[in-house]
Amino acid sequence: MRPVFGFGQENAAPNEQAEVKADQNSETFMSVAARSRSGGRAGRRALRTAPDHDMLPGLARNLPLCEPLDEDQIRKLDDASMSILEDVGIIFRDPIALDDWKKACARVDGERVYLDREHVRELIRTIPSSFTYHARNPKKNVPVGGNRTIFVPMTGAPFLRDLDGVRRNPMLDDLAMFHKLSHMLPAIHSSAHHIVEPYDHPISHRHLRITYSSMKHSDKTFMGMTTSPKNAEDVMDMCAILFGEEYLENHPVTTGNCNGNSPLVWDETMLGAMRAFSKRNQPVLCSPFVLGGANTPASVVPAVAQLNAEALSALAYTQVIRKGAPAIYGHYLSTVSMRSGAPMAGTPEISLMNFLIGQLARYYDVPWRSSGSLGGAKTFDAQAGYESATTLNAVIHAGANYIWHAAGWNEAGMHCCVAKFIVDAEQCAMVYRMAEGPRWDDFDEALAAVRDVGPGGHYLGHPHTQENFQRAFFMPDMFDNNSIEQWKAEGEVEITERALKQARKLLSEYQEPKLDEARNEALLDYIARREREIPAEDALNQDY
Amino acid sequence: MRPVFGFGQENAAPNEQAEVKADQNSETFMSVAARSRSGGRAGRRALRTAPDHDMLPGLARNLPLCEPLDEDQIRKLDDASMSILEDVGIIFRDPIALDDWKKACARVDGERVYLDREHVRELIRTIPSSFTYHARNPKKNVPVGGNRTIFVPMTGAPFLRDLDGVRRNPMLDDLAMFHKLSHMLPAIHSSAHHIVEPYDHPISHRHLRITYSSMKHSDKTFMGMTTSPKNAEDVMDMCAILFGEEYLENHPVTTGNCNGNSPLVWDETMLGAMRAFSKRNQPVLCSPFVLGGANTPASVVPAVAQLNAEALSALAYTQVIRKGAPAIYGHYLSTVSMRSGAPMAGTPEISLMNFLIGQLARYYDVPWRSSGSLGGAKTFDAQAGYESATTLNAVIHAGANYIWHAAGWNEAGMHCCVAKFIVDAEQCAMVYRMAEGPRWDDFDEALAAVRDVGPGGHYLGHPHTQENFQRAFFMPDMFDNNSIEQWKAEGEVEITERALKQARKLLSEYQEPKLDEARNEALLDYIARREREIPAEDALNQDY
Repeated sequence: MRPVFGFGQENAAPNEQAEVKADQNSETFMSVAARSRSGGRAGRRALRTAPDHDMLPGLARNLPLCEPLDEDQIRKLDDASMSILEDVGIIFRDPIALDDWKKACARVDGERVYLDREHVRELIRTIPSSFTYHARNPKKNVPVGGNRTIFVPMTGAPFLRDLDGVRRNPMLDDLAMFHKLSHMLPAIHSSAHHIVEPYDHPISHRHLRITYSSMKHSDKTFMGMTTSPKNAEDVMDMCAILFGEEYLENHPVTTGNCNGNSPLVWDETMLGAMRAFSKRNQPVLCSPFVLGGANTPASVVPAVAQLNAEALSALAYTQVIRKGAPAIYGHYLSTVSMRSGAPMAGTPEISLMNFLIGQLARYYDVPWRSSGSLGGAKTFDAQAGYESATTLNAVIHAGANYIWHAAGWNEAGMHCCVAKFIVDAEQCAMVYRMAEGPRWDDFDEALAAVRDVGPGGHYLGHPHTQENFQRAFFMPDMFDNNSIEQWKAEGEVEITERALKQARKLLSEYQEPKLDEARNEALLDYIARREREIPAEDALNQDY
Repeated sequence: MRPVFGFGQENAAPNEQAEVKADQNSETFMSVAARSRSGGRAGRRALRTAPDHDMLPGLARNLPLCEPLDEDQIRKLDDASMSILEDVGIIFRDPIALDDWKKACARVDGERVYLDREHVRELIRTIPSSFTYHARNPKKNVPVGGNRTIFVPMTGAPFLRDLDGVRRNPMLDDLAMFHKLSHMLPAIHSSAHHIVEPYDHPISHRHLRITYSSMKHSDKTFMGMTTSPKNAEDVMDMCAILFGEEYLENHPVTTGNCNGNSPLVWDETMLGAMRAFSKRNQPVLCSPFVLGGANTPASVVPAVAQLNAEALSALAYTQVIRKGAPAIYGHYLSTVSMRSGAPMAGTPEISLMNFLIGQLARYYDVPWRSSGSLGGAKTFDAQAGYESATTLNAVIHAGANYIWHAAGWNEAGMHCCVAKFIVDAEQCAMVYRMAEGPRWDDFDEALAAVRDVGPGGHYLGHPHTQENFQRAFFMPDMFDNNSIEQWKAEGEVEITERALKQARKLLSEYQEPKLDEARNEALLDYIARREREIPAEDALNQDY
């Protein structure tokens, strides 16, 4: 008795196994489906092809969240963070910000700002609980906040692992490739910005090329560069060209990330970029940069208390800049190996911190950004899979609104991996489905099927199955679930190769969502002018 | 400015990055640690080595669970399942069981048994909510039920992927290897039974050799074979030899799995094995075998309604066999690809079904078994990582008490992978830590550290860090988080090779937990006698 492909024996008696396993033989299934279903061969063909690049709307979560804190514990954490801001203070290493805080009647001593808790509460109260993040294609606007979640690709990689699996410096064409893929992958809601660094352009001009590439190759939302206050202002100008100055004034059309320098420091670059965005009513992600154990206490809850103080101080400052401007509670989270000093991902403490931070962001009633596919693997091996799936599942259970770095992240962010980008994007689609929660709309109908089929029968030919099978169970394209015999016959293709094939296929099908001609020209004119004005510093480039 | 290894740029300004990243340089960390910490070099050495094979106690979960069902929905699902049992009935393909049901006053028509809901409720009420699962080393007893969780390796694989990464038929020595590894891996609570099938022994004798190997190579709990009623009785006899007849009568010392034949059939083999276990007061896992869409409706909630009916009928039957005998709500869960007929793992619907089933098991107040590391990958590639991490995280959030197939499962259970076994076991230790929830015991002390360190400082040399760093953040041995330069210098080792090296190291350190000499001899005598009595049928063996 040769075990039929499919699953372990699990102690089932041999005769039983044979019976059960017959059901999952693909020939059997397809022949039953063909017999029972109008359309037959054509239907099966449609099933196999059916490319659908339509973007999924922003996820509306309908699963209870993992909320470990009771009310007392939330108050205790809030009190700890507020006490840090009141007693320890926080450095705003930026003369304009210090001046702003003085005008706002905060106590300022040198670079250190001491913030009273009531003052903080009053300030963050005017941050919108949620907002619509506008795309140039209004069908691709997405909500940020509440029970809604969007998935945004990784950014900032100085290397890529390319369509041939080679790790190398990226060029502008590589960035365009990622923007095209972002445009086509249904669960990805944004083309982000510098997914990879375009090394063929001087560092001081890159923000212009990056922003244009995001705008041109995708009509989804995109992110805005915050590498310097001036760069951020250029991005704002380009947004004004693309959307119109007045529209920009009243609609969030991009998001900028501002990293904190934990513990308890915000610096001039980030604060200047923050002002550029907030003044124009564009949301910033206020993101303490946590290397747990190195720049926070070596303990989950206290690390969150510090991170929370940092995030709150920046969120408060956005409202000093412009009352009512949208802003997002953010962070970059890692824990540090106390053996080697290396940052880690996919660890239990990162999941726990996410659960706690999600609760705090909801307590303060502000949208919350976390990260989705973090990991430190050097290649797209099983480590990468474990790390990313653990992180993504954690932030979904934690209720993140804006899941950044949701696709492509590898090697602790040092490279964006094309293969992983494709697989992560499918993983986003999968947690999307999970987070929608169970459906009840076909409950009675399906129970009638149980009565029809009865003991010992099978459901493949039943009308309920025929009508529901497309939407019933997610069928991941990137997972191979065939028998090893079939897998061998098909050339022993592992997931990396499968994903790269899919990337090539998508790119061959890509159709550019054309920019309005006048706006396109205006953007190109703007870039040309700014490139004449800005000296072409390419120090970073020469280094590689 | 060369980006320092560690994480993507995330839009941080260059100067800020450089500052932050300096903290995670291993030289810096180690030198700070050496300066600050009593013990210095010796302490660091202890940190690097410190092998600890002590078993973790059964996990006490302290995280809120993912419970999507409200009370009405639980009642609706319960009603649906009970209606199936009342109106559709369920086949018990076994004359003794049919006779038992008749004596218990159930309506029996041919092989079909119709169970009244009040009757079912009355029967399952006597199943213990929780019990202690006894090991031959009482320090390794573990609780099953309530908020407690144990991790049990995969079983039933007809192939293994061995210490050289080769996929082949396993022999008894390979099984012994897995039992030794199970003995040494801290988060694994059981040596299970036929992790792999020992092909060098006739199929009719294997259950004896498998049981002896579990008993001999590990002093943790183990599972009992249920491949036939006679085999199950042999296992009971061997347990009586190992633990003593009287002890066995009053203590659960093994668990047996009985698979249902969905939809709505229990067969003679499984029911006979169930009787062998339940009569001796040993717990059985009542496990419908779900190929979602093929042998259930193609819809999450209705599939659970059917599975629940199946599980309840078997749970009820255990109490007909012996009132008060421990029993466990179980299942094998997959969804079937409607494209190919292949079973899938790590899909959103499997997570959702787990959330629902967990709620139902708690509603009926019986311990619940799910599966931890399922997947269909043919090798230990990224697919395997995504699938297993997704499944494991789902069943932890679902609150499973008995996580079977928690290590080693690959290729839809067709092979047990040594490398994956090691990595999965570490993953179990990681979700173990997560599920314990956040600690508050050092909160005040750590907040004092925030005041000490202040803005712009670092925590590496602070006494709180020094005292807490070992327990603060999980440091996975199987994840490489070093820089790519270091990784290259060390030979570009991917996770598979790392895990195989660790397996070899563990096996070289293995020390057998010796059986009592008299009991060992009695066990060997029993096996010798039974092997003389049982014809050596080796049909399965010849097939390979």
